[in-house]
Amino acid sequence: MIKVGIINVTGYAGAELARLLYTHPEVELLSVSGRSAAGKPLAEVFPHLACYDLTIGEESDAVDFAFSALPHAASAEACAPLVRAGVPVVDISADFRLRDAKEYAEWYGGEHPAPDLLLQAVYGLTELNREAVQQSKLIANPGCFPEGALLALAPAVKAGIIGSDIIVDSKSGISGAGRGLDLKYHFGEADESVSAYGLSGHRHLPEIVQELARMWPQAEAPMVIDKTVRVWPADEPRAGGAPRVTFTPHLIPMTRGILSTCYAPLLPGALPSGEEAKNAVRDLYRDLYAGEPFVRVVDSPPATKQTRGNNMCLVYPTVDVRTDRLVVVSVLDNLVKGAAGQAIQNMNAMLGLPEAMGLDAPAVYP
Amino acid sequence: MIKVGIINVTGYAGAELARLLYTHPEVELLSVSGRSAAGKPLAEVFPHLACYDLTIGEESDAVDFAFSALPHAASAEACAPLVRAGVPVVDISADFRLRDAKEYAEWYGGEHPAPDLLLQAVYGLTELNREAVQQSKLIANPGCFPEGALLALAPAVKAGIIGSDIIVDSKSGISGAGRGLDLKYHFGEADESVSAYGLSGHRHLPEIVQELARMWPQAEAPMVIDKTVRVWPADEPRAGGAPRVTFTPHLIPMTRGILSTCYAPLLPGALPSGEEAKNAVRDLYRDLYAGEPFVRVVDSPPATKQTRGNNMCLVYPTVDVRTDRLVVVSVLDNLVKGAAGQAIQNMNAMLGLPEAMGLDAPAVYP
Amino acid sequence: MIKVGIINVTGYAGAELARLLYTHPEVELLSVSGRSAAGKPLAEVFPHLACYDLTIGEESDAVDFAFSALPHAASAEACAPLVRAGVPVVDISADFRLRDAKEYAEWYGGEHPAPDLLLQAVYGLTELNREAVQQSKLIANPGCFPEGALLALAPAVKAGIIGSDIIVDSKSGISGAGRGLDLKYHFGEADESVSAYGLSGHRHLPEIVQELARMWPQAEAPMVIDKTVRVWPADEPRAGGAPRVTFTPHLIPMTRGILSTCYAPLLPGALPSGEEAKNAVRDLYRDLYAGEPFVRVVDSPPATKQTRGNNMCLVYPTVDVRTDRLVVVSVLDNLVKGAAGQAIQNMNAMLGLPEAMGLDAPAVYP
Amino acid sequence: MIKVGIINVTGYAGAELARLLYTHPEVELLSVSGRSAAGKPLAEVFPHLACYDLTIGEESDAVDFAFSALPHAASAEACAPLVRAGVPVVDISADFRLRDAKEYAEWYGGEHPAPDLLLQAVYGLTELNREAVQQSKLIANPGCFPEGALLALAPAVKAGIIGSDIIVDSKSGISGAGRGLDLKYHFGEADESVSAYGLSGHRHLPEIVQELARMWPQAEAPMVIDKTVRVWPADEPRAGGAPRVTFTPHLIPMTRGILSTCYAPLLPGALPSGEEAKNAVRDLYRDLYAGEPFVRVVDSPPATKQTRGNNMCLVYPTVDVRTDRLVVVSVLDNLVKGAAGQAIQNMNAMLGLPEAMGLDAPAVYP
Repeated sequence: MIKVGIINVTGYAGAELARLLYTHPEVELLSVSGRSAAGKPLAEVFPHLACYDLTIGEESDAVDFAFSALPHAASAEACAPLVRAGVPVVDISADFRLRDAKEYAEWYGGEHPAPDLLLQAVYGLTELNREAVQQSKLIANPGCFPEGALLALAPAVKAGIIGSDIIVDSKSGISGAGRGLDLKYHFGEADESVSAYGLSGHRHLPEIVQELARMWPQAEAPMVIDKTVRVWPADEPRAGGAPRVTFTPHLIPMTRGILSTCYAPLLPGALPSGEEAKNAVRDLYRDLYAGEPFVRVVDSPPATKQTRGNNMCLVYPTVDVRTDRLVVVSVLDNLVKGAAGQAIQNMNAMLGLPEAMGLDAPAVYP
Repeated sequence: MIKVGIINVTGYAGAELARLLYTHPEVELLSVSGRSAAGKPLAEVFPHLACYDLTIGEESDAVDFAFSALPHAASAEACAPLVRAGVPVVDISADFRLRDAKEYAEWYGGEHPAPDLLLQAVYGLTELNREAVQQSKLIANPGCFPEGALLALAPAVKAGIIGSDIIVDSKSGISGAGRGLDLKYHFGEADESVSAYGLSGHRHLPEIVQELARMWPQAEAPMVIDKTVRVWPADEPRAGGAPRVTFTPHLIPMTRGILSTCYAPLLPGALPSGEEAKNAVRDLYRDLYAGEPFVRVVDSPPATKQTRGNNMCLVYPTVDVRTDRLVVVSVLDNLVKGAAGQAIQNMNAMLGLPEAMGLDAPAVYP
Repeated sequence: MIKVGIINVTGYAGAELARLLYTHPEVELLSVSGRSAAGKPLAEVFPHLACYDLTIGEESDAVDFAFSALPHAASAEACAPLVRAGVPVVDISADFRLRDAKEYAEWYGGEHPAPDLLLQAVYGLTELNREAVQQSKLIANPGCFPEGALLALAPAVKAGIIGSDIIVDSKSGISGAGRGLDLKYHFGEADESVSAYGLSGHRHLPEIVQELARMWPQAEAPMVIDKTVRVWPADEPRAGGAPRVTFTPHLIPMTRGILSTCYAPLLPGALPSGEEAKNAVRDLYRDLYAGEPFVRVVDSPPATKQTRGNNMCLVYPTVDVRTDRLVVVSVLDNLVKGAAGQAIQNMNAMLGLPEAMGLDAPAVYP
Repeated sequence: MIKVGIINVTGYAGAELARLLYTHPEVELLSVSGRSAAGKPLAEVFPHLACYDLTIGEESDAVDFAFSALPHAASAEACAPLVRAGVPVVDISADFRLRDAKEYAEWYGGEHPAPDLLLQAVYGLTELNREAVQQSKLIANPGCFPEGALLALAPAVKAGIIGSDIIVDSKSGISGAGRGLDLKYHFGEADESVSAYGLSGHRHLPEIVQELARMWPQAEAPMVIDKTVRVWPADEPRAGGAPRVTFTPHLIPMTRGILSTCYAPLLPGALPSGEEAKNAVRDLYRDLYAGEPFVRVVDSPPATKQTRGNNMCLVYPTVDVRTDRLVVVSVLDNLVKGAAGQAIQNMNAMLGLPEAMGLDAPAVYP
């Protein structure tokens, strides 16, 4: 059994890790920490975790594997000594997601606590980065919004069928904002209401742009790979340059779930015209996600509830044939595929376990 | 007192008309019809309307003014004889919104029941069409989505500051789908879930496009009207042509409210650069909505709950300075400003009453 | 116009007073206070109140009438000088509800700040106490739970048809807990969940008991007033003595509304047997609430949504014929009939205005 | 592997069986039936069950074990041939819960389709009936409300500490009403609202009464078993006779969960007086549920969300010391412990498997 520690179990992501790990056959949860509740039984803070006989304590250094669910900055500080001691770590915070310490400072408002580790860290969107994840000891677990946006856009970007004018309009349940108190998340204020936020720039924006840019095709001209879809070869520059992304998150009166609606112009001739474009794009997505245990390309628009509590991301790509735009809808559970489930998927990949181990329970629907 | 009739009071829009008219000082609600509940007291079908001593019956022809809240097709059939008899009518259905009977047939799937009245009908978005409304006897009350989208985009379109690549991403409470039974609206299915729909083309799309096209500036070159904003003169063609709109509605787990997030590229040089663009666009919107009783341009992103139960539309325009895109968020109550309240506002305008009469109660918050 | 002040407008009850007073034809809202937001425009703190051009400031002494929506203790301190200066006051806090300063100290944990005013104060459940309210200058506005429980039980108690073993099981929306921050009211915790609280004794219990005891019949033997219902004469002791009430409030995942289910044993022979008992008890309730503008005895179980935003209390009395128990269900909006609406109803009564003035808007349904 | 069939997978209970069985290590789900969706892939009807490669078909007779989630009457008809063929069956419908065919006819409105099997059937509340369940081939799975009410009351009844005047006030999420369409369960109607129903007698009432009566102590006088709690010996009549239960269910705006608040008078001297009574009753409950995997006696009032998606029932017993009443709050997930989870627990018991097998995933909180 792999002895696992969760650093900061007292937030929603930490508690969700504990919930999911309980049924993982190769894991023993050895220690859980959390300063605000130190010394309390886990079962007192989270009655749904009474299955564990654990007390919230200090971070243990006797673990084989660690997850950090601390807020940014504090997380890098807690992870650094573990990484340096050779303990593999998945960091759920944002600390190792942006590769550029300057960009980190700009968005997160402070010096990076461990800039030397940035190059070691691998961005843990397993589906798009599997080999690197498997060989890494430090994973930057993706943000919940980038997770859904990148899985929605990656096939189109890699195939080079879209231009760079991208809009990501996301709708998130309120647990995405964490367990901290704020009038915005008071039931009386949030219930029966929708609002947009982060309109001046949400911290998940540079993460989306960075990862899209990494996969952006560089060719001047597309390569025809079959009769219906033209794809750009890698390593060649393409007109249009870096993606220009507008990202708007919205607060939705539900606890869990993110739906992202992504819009981008189709490049002329990239897809067959008319209704056939819809099938072509779906086939393209199906090909690129073939065999993935946690991405399913679906035939009709999905609902967030279809992923509640489990690690699936459902992706529905289609084409607005009146305007030649790609529209992709993705849904996931922000605490699972958008945080703790993705982290365990990464752990499985890092440790050479089957990627879906411990993550196979269906969504809790309705 | 104006004797008013509501045709089909048994849906949400009809019941909302009755609710709002109860406190209108110049109106007496004389008759309410509704085939599914004919013969029943209104108070039995809607306990919250027990203040009325009315029985649901036939449509009365003794009214001075009529609202129709019937479904499309049935509504035009019921309105036509009234209009021909000289009774002023506000039709809440879609029947008189599209000016082109062919387009109507395409989107609504049938011959228009009274195509001769199409030219008489005025699209009743009072703020954008006030004089025509005041002189009309037949108002096509706007759809709930077009209402929010058009109020969000009109100032930018009229000022000619945006290009034609427009995306409208709307989030609607479930009462927008009406009171009919469908598994999609069953509490167990809709609660705690978000989904997109209408991705192949929602019926409100042609309505949005038609009205945007009507106000679209035609100039080749903009006219500078003050130091910060350049505006196109009317009646001259502009490069770019008709608006190319993608519209995606989403179902949100709440009863009332629509939030629309609208995206469009800013034309080069249309606004000052950087952060100043945000103030410039807000000033532009404030100018164009100055004096409007039911549109308020706000300084921070609004929440649908701030308009619950009342006739206000809150509009928040801003600029994504990284990508030079206009982003406008609007919120309203789909049953009030998106239906019954807008209809009463139109009635007031048609009858020469103060436009806000009977519509001044603040939103029911929280 | 009556110049009115609201002391502490920044909580839900205070804001609801401002909302409802906006359409009151005889009131001018002159001043609103609130320490946490002093100096801010009311429209900034509550965008739905942007109809007012008011700044949150000090308490004004130039008002003709004051409402206090302060927390207990602070409220009595703020009300006392006004009352002594002759300004009529409705206190929404609990400070003047319990007549016994010792009982107050026991339940509210501190000396009463103005015990000399306790005898002057009138318990403002207008329906049960109309004459005293009309003649009073200091009203203790009822708690939201007692409001529903007392209106549900009063007719049965006054008629002497029930024994003293009373259970009040109440279900409340979360706005009843106020606008203060607490993990219990965080959306993620409260949404999709029900819980009981106050099981060791909720502060509204002594209020319910006090008022029930005041109306409890004292007769040894009932008086027959018609063929079906036997009623105890007043001023005579009755076996059984004081009511023995268990009160359990529950937190419900909705913003507004209280439903109280009240249970009591029927006294033998008090009602006809079998199904007739149901009609007899409904007739009894109808008689006792005849003419009341804000209590309606209904024929089928009501839903809280039928009173959302308005001042109505719907009461459904019935009999469990298998066990000879009275079961009464009442619903109301905790912020209106359970707080601000009841307070305005009291103001109307105190000032000799029609009791329903400014309170006639139907509920916002759905 | 045990080959299992689910009869009528298309309702919420049937789908929940499929969800939970997916992670059961000894079960292979062989067949799922459902007339309304016959021929469709399970993944189409329920996207969250896309993990299964099953088509909804006829009932299979090649199964080793069957669950029926059909409505009453149809269920007995479908179960009877299986039972007669020796296939062990858990029936989730109400058909085999009431032992008396006459009572069945009265409450369910029709002749019992297989009255000869009534004596064979065992009421499957495993905790209270374990040995009989283990030896049975036909289990009547308890109703969702009786499940919570009986687990809340059983220890007090068995210990003989309460009188017979029992009130069960239950609050249920809307999935308890099933997946059928009805205006009452339309989101617009049910959201943000609470209502009581079944006030003339809900079908779960006779089930609660039958099972309480079965465990009701018969002694004239209590037996002292330790210093704090007096218990009645079995098999002796006790004054007071059968339980007199009033049961009121309420519809709550949430999808899953039942909270039942149960009230009963404490018999004089049954518990120590004052605050000690609270500890004594909790100890009594702890003793009687010691070792149970799916009942936990908790120290503070539980929330339904703490059991969302899992098979736990949390029970909080306390005493209202002002009125000498026992108050017990229980919470569970109506689709799991109140239906499918309880059914699988019964299957495990019937087949000699560990009772918790496949049911150990923690609740999905928040």
